[in-house]
Amino acid sequence: MQLRAADRVFLSLALTLSIAGCGSPPAPARSAPQASSTATTDVSFVLDNAIVVTMDGSGRVLSPGSVAVDGTNIVAVDTPEAIAAKYRGRQRLDLAGHIVLPGLINTHTHAPMVLYRGLADDLALSEWLEKYIFPAEARTVSPEFVRAGTRLAALEMIESGTTTFVDMYYFEEEIAKETRAAGLRGVLGQTIIQFPVADAKTPVDALARAERFITEFKNDPLITPAVAPHAIYTLDAASLTAARDLSRRHGVPTLIHLAETRDEAKNAEEQLKLSPARYLESLGFLGPGVLVAHGVWVSEPDIALLTMRGVGISHNPESNMKLASGTAPVPAYLRADAAIGLGTDGAASNNDLDMFEAMRMASLLHKLQTADPRAVSAKTALEMATIRGARALGKESQIGSLETGKRADLVLVDVSGARQTPMYDPVSHLVYVARGDDVRTTIVNGKVLMRDRKVLTLNEAEVIRDARAWANKVRAAIK
Amino acid sequence: MQLRAADRVFLSLALTLSIAGCGSPPAPARSAPQASSTATTDVSFVLDNAIVVTMDGSGRVLSPGSVAVDGTNIVAVDTPEAIAAKYRGRQRLDLAGHIVLPGLINTHTHAPMVLYRGLADDLALSEWLEKYIFPAEARTVSPEFVRAGTRLAALEMIESGTTTFVDMYYFEEEIAKETRAAGLRGVLGQTIIQFPVADAKTPVDALARAERFITEFKNDPLITPAVAPHAIYTLDAASLTAARDLSRRHGVPTLIHLAETRDEAKNAEEQLKLSPARYLESLGFLGPGVLVAHGVWVSEPDIALLTMRGVGISHNPESNMKLASGTAPVPAYLRADAAIGLGTDGAASNNDLDMFEAMRMASLLHKLQTADPRAVSAKTALEMATIRGARALGKESQIGSLETGKRADLVLVDVSGARQTPMYDPVSHLVYVARGDDVRTTIVNGKVLMRDRKVLTLNEAEVIRDARAWANKVRAAIK
Repeated sequence: MQLRAADRVFLSLALTLSIAGCGSPPAPARSAPQASSTATTDVSFVLDNAIVVTMDGSGRVLSPGSVAVDGTNIVAVDTPEAIAAKYRGRQRLDLAGHIVLPGLINTHTHAPMVLYRGLADDLALSEWLEKYIFPAEARTVSPEFVRAGTRLAALEMIESGTTTFVDMYYFEEEIAKETRAAGLRGVLGQTIIQFPVADAKTPVDALARAERFITEFKNDPLITPAVAPHAIYTLDAASLTAARDLSRRHGVPTLIHLAETRDEAKNAEEQLKLSPARYLESLGFLGPGVLVAHGVWVSEPDIALLTMRGVGISHNPESNMKLASGTAPVPAYLRADAAIGLGTDGAASNNDLDMFEAMRMASLLHKLQTADPRAVSAKTALEMATIRGARALGKESQIGSLETGKRADLVLVDVSGARQTPMYDPVSHLVYVARGDDVRTTIVNGKVLMRDRKVLTLNEAEVIRDARAWANKVRAAIK
Repeated sequence: MQLRAADRVFLSLALTLSIAGCGSPPAPARSAPQASSTATTDVSFVLDNAIVVTMDGSGRVLSPGSVAVDGTNIVAVDTPEAIAAKYRGRQRLDLAGHIVLPGLINTHTHAPMVLYRGLADDLALSEWLEKYIFPAEARTVSPEFVRAGTRLAALEMIESGTTTFVDMYYFEEEIAKETRAAGLRGVLGQTIIQFPVADAKTPVDALARAERFITEFKNDPLITPAVAPHAIYTLDAASLTAARDLSRRHGVPTLIHLAETRDEAKNAEEQLKLSPARYLESLGFLGPGVLVAHGVWVSEPDIALLTMRGVGISHNPESNMKLASGTAPVPAYLRADAAIGLGTDGAASNNDLDMFEAMRMASLLHKLQTADPRAVSAKTALEMATIRGARALGKESQIGSLETGKRADLVLVDVSGARQTPMYDPVSHLVYVARGDDVRTTIVNGKVLMRDRKVLTLNEAEVIRDARAWANKVRAAIK
């Protein structure tokens, strides 16, 4: 009798907490598996009866599968029967018609630049920067601007299944505050750049700001403060070295743009007689904890060097295409087993923060460029957006896959609509069919940030209203 | 007093018929402009107070603008004030926060292949075709299969803003019946191919079937029947000529795959001593009414030839990338002012029918390949998906832009969400930011097929259920 009563409670919770998408057929009520009366442990919640794409070392896909979460952590990933035998969720979410996957990791963006989304397109890089982006930044970037922009970016990321993002911008401590409030995980780098910018007159000022930022956020459970020397072409050797030293001193990551454009590589070869990667090596810059964005114009020896030094790489296919920067040699990075993740770059050159699109683009682009449809498979693209991205951040023991003991950073994707029908292979589906819009629920560090498309940590209408007000100022700034 | 009463009715209709998206802020009630009591004409409906992207010869964007529709036709496109002075809609749709644009034209697909969406990916073309697609087709293609597949494809196209599509498949008369029932406009080609297929044992059989199909649908307002000789490598010269003769005799379009892969071009050069385009020219095949899909492996003289002959071209960037076929020289086609539209190809090689994604991919791909971010601008990509696509079909006098006298094929796109904020330029926004999911209302030939994401001409749950049942048969067929 006791067992039956427990089952009734279990089922009634399942119905109450069902998060099947509106418009999708109601999730069929599964009969609750027989729970052992002796060994069940109470946990925060059980995500039950989904297709679980774990991205663990063996690439396990459980269909159906369940995930038990307690507090901030995943405590078990197994069949629904095995989970039901061991765990009882204080909440149970029945996920028939959904895929559960690790939260996506965006390894390179400039979050507040969502406020410049579509400000100017289809222009040569120099014209784009000099006539639009730099003047707009000079006249609008402020603590209030980056906070409004980060809120909008956080909304977009939560809505499209990104749970961790890597950022490089100004007033990074303000970005950190908004990221923490939104509940996202962030590796956030304070920009160091040679010329005067909104938050620092000199690199020395910027380094001081970075150090205050590191001290303030060093022990935050969600925020990893970082130092972000902008690039080799916007910093002298002394500033590059000082930035790297600061991050080494505090044991925090170093983020830098590297070998993004042909000009950058050409100028380095001409002026320094070194490739961009070799130049950083000559400064003693490379090592674990360094994450380079783009890595487009690299040779095979550069790739070997970056890999040997344990450097992470962020591949940004859409931005590289839109700005006509070139094609990063991703198949070569993968052959070297480099820690290469995916990024969107800022929304000014993308024009969104959708990591599903980044996966699709990475996969399609390298098939075309190698003339081999087997290059960058769906599985590899999904790895880059999850576990390999985590490796790029040195966080593979905490995030990037659904495994016992890792943080509960999870995304639930609805695959019940017309354009998602039929589904033959969930991994292919996630890359070639799914979009950010299909994410129904986003969980970071065990906390539900979005449930059934409703973001719980931000006021969507207010964030959009503020963003529109800032856009008016941006328009005025470039007139 | 009479005027005021009319105004009251007008406003109350506006509120009743408001189609602003759920979740978006309510459309502010505009004060109805003073209507002249003498000159207003009753029309079916007025789409009011939107951003109207006309794609007419001068690229006019009205912000705000309105469109008056009567019966199947657009009767006026103008400012809200000018429309209100002349027309009174029996329905009025207040579209604050929406873009109105011409319905998108998908110039190449195989609609029923949505049932093979994601069946097999990341494979070399020959393995993909021989191990998966051909066996699956041999065992599943039937009139019932193509009907179920067409319904699913129609649902996806209506939901993503496609109003006209060009199809090449088997049992095309069944596809036509479902297309008509769904309310979409279709240029539908019965396949002619040398080897035995589900609907014809020989090309002669297929030609007889094509002729019956043409006769049956010749005067349909939505369906343009066509003849679709598959390709130069799957048909002998006699069959190619016979297919072209049949379409000439009936004055209907001819659809063919051309120069899709390097192998096709190489074999033509080796065996026929001609490029694929030149070979068709040698058969007297090329001329107005011919639409070639892909056109990847073409020389500048081939492009000049196709353009001179008035041939339409369908560019399919995602399929060409996914199958690693190569990059069509789109900038060269555009320099020649070719009638080049965009297509998705079948969902088995895409894996969706979203023309917004096709626009974005076309724009990004050619920037990268030409190393010029000015190549294929947003405006050009949107032209290819609308008016230039209409030219590729010889239908530019009827569809492809919002102009008086053209058919009312219209799409309403919601741009109020987080990932669409802010908006600086509606044309850039449609290409780099919008997705099929943002389409809220789709109108074809003056008929509303989808309203506020609810498709009115198809039973979504039933269509998806049927498709899943077919997917089970497909799985069994390739075991």
